[in-house]
Amino acid sequence: MTTLYHHPMSAASRFVRLILQEYGYQYDLAEEQPWEKRREFLTLNPAGTLPVYVDDNMRVLSGATVISEFLDETHGVLKRDRRLLAEDPFQRAEIRRLTEWFLEKMEQDVTMPLVRERVFKLQMPPTMGGGAPDSKILRTARNNVRQHMKYLGWLSASRPWLAGDRLSYADLAAAAAISVLDYLGEINWQENPEAKEWYQRLKSRPSIRTLLTERIRGVTPVSHYADLDF
Amino acid sequence: MTTLYHHPMSAASRFVRLILQEYGYQYDLAEEQPWEKRREFLTLNPAGTLPVYVDDNMRVLSGATVISEFLDETHGVLKRDRRLLAEDPFQRAEIRRLTEWFLEKMEQDVTMPLVRERVFKLQMPPTMGGGAPDSKILRTARNNVRQHMKYLGWLSASRPWLAGDRLSYADLAAAAAISVLDYLGEINWQENPEAKEWYQRLKSRPSIRTLLTERIRGVTPVSHYADLDF
Repeated sequence: MTTLYHHPMSAASRFVRLILQEYGYQYDLAEEQPWEKRREFLTLNPAGTLPVYVDDNMRVLSGATVISEFLDETHGVLKRDRRLLAEDPFQRAEIRRLTEWFLEKMEQDVTMPLVRERVFKLQMPPTMGGGAPDSKILRTARNNVRQHMKYLGWLSASRPWLAGDRLSYADLAAAAAISVLDYLGEINWQENPEAKEWYQRLKSRPSIRTLLTERIRGVTPVSHYADLDF
Repeated sequence: MTTLYHHPMSAASRFVRLILQEYGYQYDLAEEQPWEKRREFLTLNPAGTLPVYVDDNMRVLSGATVISEFLDETHGVLKRDRRLLAEDPFQRAEIRRLTEWFLEKMEQDVTMPLVRERVFKLQMPPTMGGGAPDSKILRTARNNVRQHMKYLGWLSASRPWLAGDRLSYADLAAAAAISVLDYLGEINWQENPEAKEWYQRLKSRPSIRTLLTERIRGVTPVSHYADLDF
């Protein structure tokens, strides 16, 4: 069976899991601590990033973009109106732009700094950079959350789904990042009613509900984390 | 005509120009200083990154990945054995993995720090971060160049072209980054004979030769920059 190397607090890993679950694809999970830079893991993916997808024939795909394009070519193309990338090249471009927005720009501005400071540093040994969170980094990232939530709210208000009329990779990428931040209690839903309405729709999907039942060692999620009503 | 917003020292911009030139596509160039964060430019691409592609109908595509996938879907697919992405999904994945390697990992480890410290800081006003280069950042980036050149050399020695038997996006992405670094004299070709042999083949292509005739204001390239013999 296909194995997905992932970390539960990696938005890119959650994104690929959501795609696999939306398409009803069976796979095994292997948790990887990316800061350990294990030699066997670097042999699979010299970039050392998550997620990594290894199929039955030990063929390896590395990174959320590479894996999601592969899944579109091998699975999505057969799914008709449940396909998560559009047919039209311009619509595909808009879906890809937003996917990149949530998994790269938001990752750098918000998700990765907050996850590193609040989760990874708890689990890393001091020799690898573990220790107390840096309050300046937290402050900057928390300011950035607000801007990103405004943009998400604006997209939610302008379109049925984030990239257009249909659920797409853009929604799954945003849900992946938002669910990580919501676990950590970093999202003010009162301030963002339109984004909240969109996330409620996402949360009602079975693909995301299984993800929301998982807990990270040593970090308790906010009380509403898995609730449809929040 | 299509307009490409670019910067001459942006590897991602060079990558898209190389694709357009390999496919014989006519386009206009508009130079953008990304640190200025011009309001009109942010309207085109809220992420503020280069390149940005605007077609005749004012439809906008942002970012090298989005643009290159669009060009494959609208042009590459018609090019048969001159197509720059493969047909097979696993080969496409390998081309995308390496494209991302050169335009994202190498960009963060090497290209962007060196370009920012050595070029952008010369042109930026002090209020936007201009000034003298930071020698610690230069030292770290120069150490990283060596590792990246080893990987490029290993790929060049193992395969006819970087991702397999045919010229692909992977070669153009690598050439885009390497040509920026070579302009700045940051590459030791003596230490990397296999990468050199690969780059000589790239340099003989008309798509890259036009790029190598351009000069950046205030920064002189190394003497061998545009030469086939270096």
